[in-house]
Amino acid sequence: QSSVTLFGVIDADLRYTKSSGQSLKKLDSSGLNTSRFGLRGTEDLGGGLKAGFWLESEINTDTGVAGAASGGAFWGRRATVSLSGDFGEIRLGRNKTTSRLHLEDFDPYAFTGLGNVGAVYSNLGSGNGTAYGRADNLASYSLPEGLGGFYGSVDVAAPEGNLANKYQGARLGYKAGPLHVSGTYANANGPTDKYKLASVGGAYDFGVARPSLVYSQAKFGARKQTIITAAVTVPLGQGQIIASYTDAKANDAAEAVTAGSARIGDSKLFAAGYVYNLSKRTALYTTVSQIKNDGAAKFAVAGSPTVAAGAKSSGFDVGIRHNF
Amino acid sequence: QSSVTLFGVIDADLRYTKSSGQSLKKLDSSGLNTSRFGLRGTEDLGGGLKAGFWLESEINTDTGVAGAASGGAFWGRRATVSLSGDFGEIRLGRNKTTSRLHLEDFDPYAFTGLGNVGAVYSNLGSGNGTAYGRADNLASYSLPEGLGGFYGSVDVAAPEGNLANKYQGARLGYKAGPLHVSGTYANANGPTDKYKLASVGGAYDFGVARPSLVYSQAKFGARKQTIITAAVTVPLGQGQIIASYTDAKANDAAEAVTAGSARIGDSKLFAAGYVYNLSKRTALYTTVSQIKNDGAAKFAVAGSPTVAAGAKSSGFDVGIRHNF
Amino acid sequence: QSSVTLFGVIDADLRYTKSSGQSLKKLDSSGLNTSRFGLRGTEDLGGGLKAGFWLESEINTDTGVAGAASGGAFWGRRATVSLSGDFGEIRLGRNKTTSRLHLEDFDPYAFTGLGNVGAVYSNLGSGNGTAYGRADNLASYSLPEGLGGFYGSVDVAAPEGNLANKYQGARLGYKAGPLHVSGTYANANGPTDKYKLASVGGAYDFGVARPSLVYSQAKFGARKQTIITAAVTVPLGQGQIIASYTDAKANDAAEAVTAGSARIGDSKLFAAGYVYNLSKRTALYTTVSQIKNDGAAKFAVAGSPTVAAGAKSSGFDVGIRHNF
Repeated sequence: QSSVTLFGVIDADLRYTKSSGQSLKKLDSSGLNTSRFGLRGTEDLGGGLKAGFWLESEINTDTGVAGAASGGAFWGRRATVSLSGDFGEIRLGRNKTTSRLHLEDFDPYAFTGLGNVGAVYSNLGSGNGTAYGRADNLASYSLPEGLGGFYGSVDVAAPEGNLANKYQGARLGYKAGPLHVSGTYANANGPTDKYKLASVGGAYDFGVARPSLVYSQAKFGARKQTIITAAVTVPLGQGQIIASYTDAKANDAAEAVTAGSARIGDSKLFAAGYVYNLSKRTALYTTVSQIKNDGAAKFAVAGSPTVAAGAKSSGFDVGIRHNF
Repeated sequence: QSSVTLFGVIDADLRYTKSSGQSLKKLDSSGLNTSRFGLRGTEDLGGGLKAGFWLESEINTDTGVAGAASGGAFWGRRATVSLSGDFGEIRLGRNKTTSRLHLEDFDPYAFTGLGNVGAVYSNLGSGNGTAYGRADNLASYSLPEGLGGFYGSVDVAAPEGNLANKYQGARLGYKAGPLHVSGTYANANGPTDKYKLASVGGAYDFGVARPSLVYSQAKFGARKQTIITAAVTVPLGQGQIIASYTDAKANDAAEAVTAGSARIGDSKLFAAGYVYNLSKRTALYTTVSQIKNDGAAKFAVAGSPTVAAGAKSSGFDVGIRHNF
Repeated sequence: QSSVTLFGVIDADLRYTKSSGQSLKKLDSSGLNTSRFGLRGTEDLGGGLKAGFWLESEINTDTGVAGAASGGAFWGRRATVSLSGDFGEIRLGRNKTTSRLHLEDFDPYAFTGLGNVGAVYSNLGSGNGTAYGRADNLASYSLPEGLGGFYGSVDVAAPEGNLANKYQGARLGYKAGPLHVSGTYANANGPTDKYKLASVGGAYDFGVARPSLVYSQAKFGARKQTIITAAVTVPLGQGQIIASYTDAKANDAAEAVTAGSARIGDSKLFAAGYVYNLSKRTALYTTVSQIKNDGAAKFAVAGSPTVAAGAKSSGFDVGIRHNF
């Protein structure tokens, strides 16, 4: 009766970070990919119809804690059941939002490790970061495959009596051969206004290198953040070089916010590293990254000490990532 | 060395509930069966002797939270080790009580979803609902199979220094061909008196329909609750119609209790729905249910807003349940 | 792609304990081995190189709670990724410390059940018991196999900005044929001084019996604890007899400490029992144990009521342990 795939990632790194003159040495988790454990499966129902499920739980390799990034929700990375067929796919449960999935496709570091671009994304004081994160109570619909390279999805998170949890997003993309382009628009409720995120991204795989570019704009009332990420992946030997550069700008209204969101401001994030594949499942890696803050900005690289307004935050790690 | 079966259920529904004029739309979990993940196995020890274990963890598909219904105990649905043979079976650990298992056998909605009969069960202010729930520290003994259709079990939960956790129960039943009858008696400690639950149930499978009936009486000191459930399952096409009707009555002493148990009173629960099986493992379903409260009663259908005393609470859902 | 081994132990016992005249009957967990569930796997990378991972989570069979002994860290027993080859093995993550592993090798009851020697180990008020426990942020290196019976390991836990979490340990041993000897030295940070643990142990398997001996000395500033454990395992029928005797002595400075560590003092722990193997995976067992405290000492056997200063604490259990 059972047809379950057990899967996961265990990733640990020796990490050195320095912010505002204070440094920290750590045995940390999830330097390249987030450590996790999961169960998934699909069932062929006949007539092109398939049912599927996916459970995924974050692991802190350094402490053994599960689900920390989701406020302790054990299956906080994903808990979904889905039905797919000629009509596309319907998926229900907790999951990454469609706008988050868009952002990840054009940034090799995405939301993990020292190059985590999430370090410079702000909810602009709206309290709702699901547009570049995950959402509870999510219902999503994806177009079927076989549309000549075009794909698309819409998703809605039910507020369930708390408007702050409301989220709606949509995405349309084209992926064929070496070319991949995508656009997304999402809005999520804050206490007063809606947090709106619009983003376009593109990548082209030249073989010797895959450059990518994402342009995102977020608004919450008069507050605005513009984020551009340029990244590249270059196959080299038994691995690849990864580099990404992100320029995040906040307008005056956003910079003026202090309480609870004092970190908003202009910042530049640079990350680069090398991943050496020991096998398809196991890799050694190293990363260097730096965030340069301007004005009141207080963005810091993952796992670093607190950074002072306008100061630098930088990191270096070597680690191992093992998939199972 | 390993002989483990991984199993589970992922169930999600779009649920609409309305109580006292207030409505709520949700992407919820466990509309038909409780979402869960588990491990179990048995080992043949020779000579008819078998060892077994069973671990089962609840999942909220909508939020990814594990074990919420058990106060966060991850394996709160079940964590047992057992030894069985010609003598019967001894089982140790956290588990459903034998009286709860009795109640489930004669109610197709049992303790799950919009038809959850637990919505109208009260511990009568005793603080101990293990008689229709689960218990920690449970030791249970079941008679062996092959007694001509008769079966039976007794179980005891050790109070471990806190008398409020004490529970004792027993059950005797007969199941052969289309007929199934069972009786149970349990008592559990409250702060002053014992909470006592007596229940008899029966079902007969006519093929075109399986009607069932349960009559339960609970007492805690002078407080009394009488609960009758009449239910039927009717195979129809690639699925079945399910309907249940429950009439719960509280005596004056029970209704007079307010603090901490203000919801006790007379109530009627009606639930009906259709389950459409896409396969043996996957089903689509829909349910409608309503609780009518009298007097001070405040029972509400699962997942609804708070209900006012004597008001109605109703729900509707469509969902998907996938077993693995 | 997947090559995961699911493994675990479910252990439950009926336990009776008595301390200072107060007794307690329990359905408890982990009388012989700690109930657990885990995932592990290794990948052959070629050239003698191997990658591996190990995740292990404690289970309270009696309540279904996971990870209780690690403050709720689900994978608190172990969460590691490792790389091994001709050079030895490097292991990163949360794990038992090398000094804890030394102590376990010469005590058949080790740190589990009524014979748990951890009952008389004290951190001497340092607040850091990792030297005989587990540590977060642990990086360990072990010598390769094939050194003529010699083995060794060193490990370091990164303090990560909190000196109280710092730990360093080393171990050297020799194991060949019936002989096994080992020595370890560890130091861990307390609020003022370092907690230092030195221990030597030896065992010899005569076939009819395997006697073992461990001598440990712990210091924290002027406070000192000396612990000697003599134990023996005797194969008998379809099982084995286990017995251990531990004499723990604290110096005056240690005994003078009251706040937060009032239990330090002179104590003797005796435990004995029989394990009857129903199969390689399943066993029935029984244990008796007693702690005799002197002076201000307040050590108690696992699961017992609180013990008064200088009083006795004793326990008896019968249980079942099932491996999967």
